[in-house]
Amino acid sequence: MSESGNGRNGVRPVTRQFVKYSFFAVDHAWLGLPPDVRAAHKSTLVAEVNSFTDRMLIRSYSTVGTRGEVDFLLWQVADRLELVQQLETAIFSTPMAPYLRTPYSFLAMTRQSQYTTESNELTLLTVKPGEAAYFFVYPFVKSHDWYQLSFETRHALMRGHIATGRKYPNVRINTTYSFGLDDQDFVVGFETDDPISFLELVMELREDPGRPFTVRDTPIFSCIRMDFPDALDTLGGVPGEVSVPAES
Amino acid sequence: MSESGNGRNGVRPVTRQFVKYSFFAVDHAWLGLPPDVRAAHKSTLVAEVNSFTDRMLIRSYSTVGTRGEVDFLLWQVADRLELVQQLETAIFSTPMAPYLRTPYSFLAMTRQSQYTTESNELTLLTVKPGEAAYFFVYPFVKSHDWYQLSFETRHALMRGHIATGRKYPNVRINTTYSFGLDDQDFVVGFETDDPISFLELVMELREDPGRPFTVRDTPIFSCIRMDFPDALDTLGGVPGEVSVPAES
Amino acid sequence: MSESGNGRNGVRPVTRQFVKYSFFAVDHAWLGLPPDVRAAHKSTLVAEVNSFTDRMLIRSYSTVGTRGEVDFLLWQVADRLELVQQLETAIFSTPMAPYLRTPYSFLAMTRQSQYTTESNELTLLTVKPGEAAYFFVYPFVKSHDWYQLSFETRHALMRGHIATGRKYPNVRINTTYSFGLDDQDFVVGFETDDPISFLELVMELREDPGRPFTVRDTPIFSCIRMDFPDALDTLGGVPGEVSVPAES
Amino acid sequence: MSESGNGRNGVRPVTRQFVKYSFFAVDHAWLGLPPDVRAAHKSTLVAEVNSFTDRMLIRSYSTVGTRGEVDFLLWQVADRLELVQQLETAIFSTPMAPYLRTPYSFLAMTRQSQYTTESNELTLLTVKPGEAAYFFVYPFVKSHDWYQLSFETRHALMRGHIATGRKYPNVRINTTYSFGLDDQDFVVGFETDDPISFLELVMELREDPGRPFTVRDTPIFSCIRMDFPDALDTLGGVPGEVSVPAES
Amino acid sequence: MSESGNGRNGVRPVTRQFVKYSFFAVDHAWLGLPPDVRAAHKSTLVAEVNSFTDRMLIRSYSTVGTRGEVDFLLWQVADRLELVQQLETAIFSTPMAPYLRTPYSFLAMTRQSQYTTESNELTLLTVKPGEAAYFFVYPFVKSHDWYQLSFETRHALMRGHIATGRKYPNVRINTTYSFGLDDQDFVVGFETDDPISFLELVMELREDPGRPFTVRDTPIFSCIRMDFPDALDTLGGVPGEVSVPAES
Repeated sequence: MSESGNGRNGVRPVTRQFVKYSFFAVDHAWLGLPPDVRAAHKSTLVAEVNSFTDRMLIRSYSTVGTRGEVDFLLWQVADRLELVQQLETAIFSTPMAPYLRTPYSFLAMTRQSQYTTESNELTLLTVKPGEAAYFFVYPFVKSHDWYQLSFETRHALMRGHIATGRKYPNVRINTTYSFGLDDQDFVVGFETDDPISFLELVMELREDPGRPFTVRDTPIFSCIRMDFPDALDTLGGVPGEVSVPAES
Repeated sequence: MSESGNGRNGVRPVTRQFVKYSFFAVDHAWLGLPPDVRAAHKSTLVAEVNSFTDRMLIRSYSTVGTRGEVDFLLWQVADRLELVQQLETAIFSTPMAPYLRTPYSFLAMTRQSQYTTESNELTLLTVKPGEAAYFFVYPFVKSHDWYQLSFETRHALMRGHIATGRKYPNVRINTTYSFGLDDQDFVVGFETDDPISFLELVMELREDPGRPFTVRDTPIFSCIRMDFPDALDTLGGVPGEVSVPAES
Repeated sequence: MSESGNGRNGVRPVTRQFVKYSFFAVDHAWLGLPPDVRAAHKSTLVAEVNSFTDRMLIRSYSTVGTRGEVDFLLWQVADRLELVQQLETAIFSTPMAPYLRTPYSFLAMTRQSQYTTESNELTLLTVKPGEAAYFFVYPFVKSHDWYQLSFETRHALMRGHIATGRKYPNVRINTTYSFGLDDQDFVVGFETDDPISFLELVMELREDPGRPFTVRDTPIFSCIRMDFPDALDTLGGVPGEVSVPAES
Repeated sequence: MSESGNGRNGVRPVTRQFVKYSFFAVDHAWLGLPPDVRAAHKSTLVAEVNSFTDRMLIRSYSTVGTRGEVDFLLWQVADRLELVQQLETAIFSTPMAPYLRTPYSFLAMTRQSQYTTESNELTLLTVKPGEAAYFFVYPFVKSHDWYQLSFETRHALMRGHIATGRKYPNVRINTTYSFGLDDQDFVVGFETDDPISFLELVMELREDPGRPFTVRDTPIFSCIRMDFPDALDTLGGVPGEVSVPAES
Repeated sequence: MSESGNGRNGVRPVTRQFVKYSFFAVDHAWLGLPPDVRAAHKSTLVAEVNSFTDRMLIRSYSTVGTRGEVDFLLWQVADRLELVQQLETAIFSTPMAPYLRTPYSFLAMTRQSQYTTESNELTLLTVKPGEAAYFFVYPFVKSHDWYQLSFETRHALMRGHIATGRKYPNVRINTTYSFGLDDQDFVVGFETDDPISFLELVMELREDPGRPFTVRDTPIFSCIRMDFPDALDTLGGVPGEVSVPAES
């Protein structure tokens, strides 16, 4: 027990980041606005979001076609929680805001893993996204039984889990911590160019002896990485790509 | 354990398909639009969807009358996830889009079954829909206990399950894999001309010794196969079929 | 096991019916429409529904006052699923459709009971509604444990259950089967003129040794039988019954 | 077992009452209507509800400030279910109806308790509300295990439960029965002038040996008793109490 | 058992407070109103809320950017429940009310802890908020098993829990009691300037031997303390902070 909690490894993390996963949905009434109004809405939204990129990391993804109730993700990383808030306030201030909802929103922080001392993909205190085409994200809750296991038992289970992950080197994991900040324990994100490898990894992990300690790992969001203007264009109505007949 | 995961049978699948089950609902305000506006909406939507059929497989079904919260299904099969997205973007670009919702959406991929080596109905990497009148679809989640069974035990249970299925040769199963892509493990679809046989099959499988490893197999969608224009016509207002009194 | 499933009793049912329980809610904006518009909406809806009564059985019930989220039930029985769909399409084609929702919808079929060989109330392949004033309806899901019991054990439990039911001869049960068609195993409906007897029956069945195998038997709908025009009139605004002050 | 169900105590209850707990919410768009329109809506609603008080018992309570999704409760007691329906039809006929919803609605009946033969607070077949300032209401579902206990064991557990209740004589319990009529087993209401006593009673009952047989006892509604016009005035906009600035 | 319930420690609490946590959401249609209308709405709302601060304690927090479905919290403390109601009535009376919802609302009271006799942070009968920048709030439900433990066992478990909390002196706990008043047992709030410490505390408590008795401790709200006008300004549109382009 003396190992646990604040500074398990004797080293208090010196710096951490807030990580926010905001999944936005667009009210479909917006899809019926005149094309030039929608174009203006989108460009203003892009400009506001871009104005924050000197202060925080923002990655955009489209979920159009992959999930029914959300349309795009803004993955945000900031040193201060207030920056995350200011970005949302800025989004609220654009003319597209009346048509935006946030059906899913996950707040987390970076943290050194309890289970590794080496510098590896699990210990990142600073989020460093890669260049992969896809991002698979879900909130993750472990059971009471898991946390009552001895640290050694959990450590051994995690070693096996990590070993399985290493069999899929083209899948890159990002684990962030939500304890006390939001409804899940962790938010887990996987970057890859190969959805098949990710599906195989998840399927193999179903047989992992640590799997039964999972209480919840849904909803799962399959996100396609795109520059923000391109992500917004998946909402339809882009001239030249699809023809929009005039409403009679 | 060496058998599991990526390439259990020593053969890495060489090609797979993305399979998307999009259940659309129409905002009932649409039912009050003038008939010619609705007709134009429907024909534009049909044209857009049809423009994709050279690049992907799209099957349409009506759920009007069989389920309360959705109206039609587009069953989509594509080699690239981006095609699924482009289809939804195209749908978003039509004038009917402001009235469309997607209350249920399931993303999956084809995959060779772990439990068969022969080429049979469970191993299809390429979706080949039949001509049956009905399609029964549901997401499927198995329990932690299932995945902790030895492969041999699971294999034996699946053999019994498959044997029961073979007693109903007029019911054709399609199994796709959602691990890591969406909230369920599998999406299962059954094509048949005979709903009674399907009901009997499901009822018999309740007594299968593998059944208790089922965590969730709902919602269940009873879908009636129709050409897309006919499916949209089940939304009402078709001249000559039912009389629409003028609003006083 | 040889007894189970398709043709347990050696007799494949020769004919069955589709049974649909559609619980409609009226958008309260409709309650603010001018009385003559509402009257026209109602009479058109009644006419359309009545036009189907030569092809299928349709019973109407009001749930106004008994349940908060639905207003009326159309209990439909048809030999073909397409008739159920055509009725909904016809309803969608009336001017009241933009104000109608279907928060609950249960699809089922008739089927001979596994537990009786005699012709009795549990074996009806053809729905024959009685004339009772009240109809209590709920979806019913049994546990994995139930279906893993031997047929003999289940049969013995059902005999006790049926015997309890027979103590309340003024309560008439209708059991329909939803396996594979919808989210529940069964839809159960009880016709009676005496709600007290029904409450007593349900309360006594709580102590039945088969009761713990129930996973879900809600929502429960208390429905008051009425001709369809009268059921629609429970939505308010009927001249002479209550006074509707003009909106100032 | 011979004691259970219909007439456990050898006496078939000769008369019972239907008890309805309707929790209404007001669409916040209503709060933006002109004050005179709202005043007219409220007075018409009051007049309609009052017109039923010669035929049934109606008590009104405000939940404004105590619960987020509902605004007021009408506690209704009638000898016939049709009266409850007629009241709702009358409410639907007033100009405020388009703005009213019923997010929670519980239907029940009075019934003599299985566990008491004396005439006491648990055996009331006729609801007799007191004059207390507060009313705490919740639906109550007991577990399968509870109903499988012998009657003697349950009786002993209930005696302890009742004894605890008697330590708080300023809290008056009303138990009504929903078996088969609605989703819960019971609806329980507590009348008191002292919320602290009620909180202490509930907290003490957490340690009752019968408590683990509770499956659900939420949502819990804290209701403040008020004449109906006063309850409606808690919806805001009453001249002289708070100032309503003109919209610019 | 003689120790439990009303006056376990032989001292009936002489005074208590009602504590209300109202989480408001703003309908995004409001974000599209002209800036001067929104400014007027906000200033009227602030004036009404401020007019109550002589009678009750009101603290404001923004959740913009930290949670998707709510925008701000009003933490209210009053000696009488009617004051909480009157505040909500006053809010309902402002022109912003049609755009306000309360997706989450928790009602509770102060109470002396069963587990401490000393005057410490767990025994406050009067809420005394600190000056910390962040407030983390969640409803808390304990299991049936917890309440069936002996008082001594629970006391021992709570001592360990409290000892862990004391390792994080910069995190200040507020525990209020909802038994019988609302759906949870407790509402727990943590004030701190250091979210990292709070995350570490919650993570360490996962391993506490009392943790498995937790049934629910979500949703978790991460709230940023702000004066009410500043909290409302996080809803966007504040001149000079972000530029709002004119709608084309």
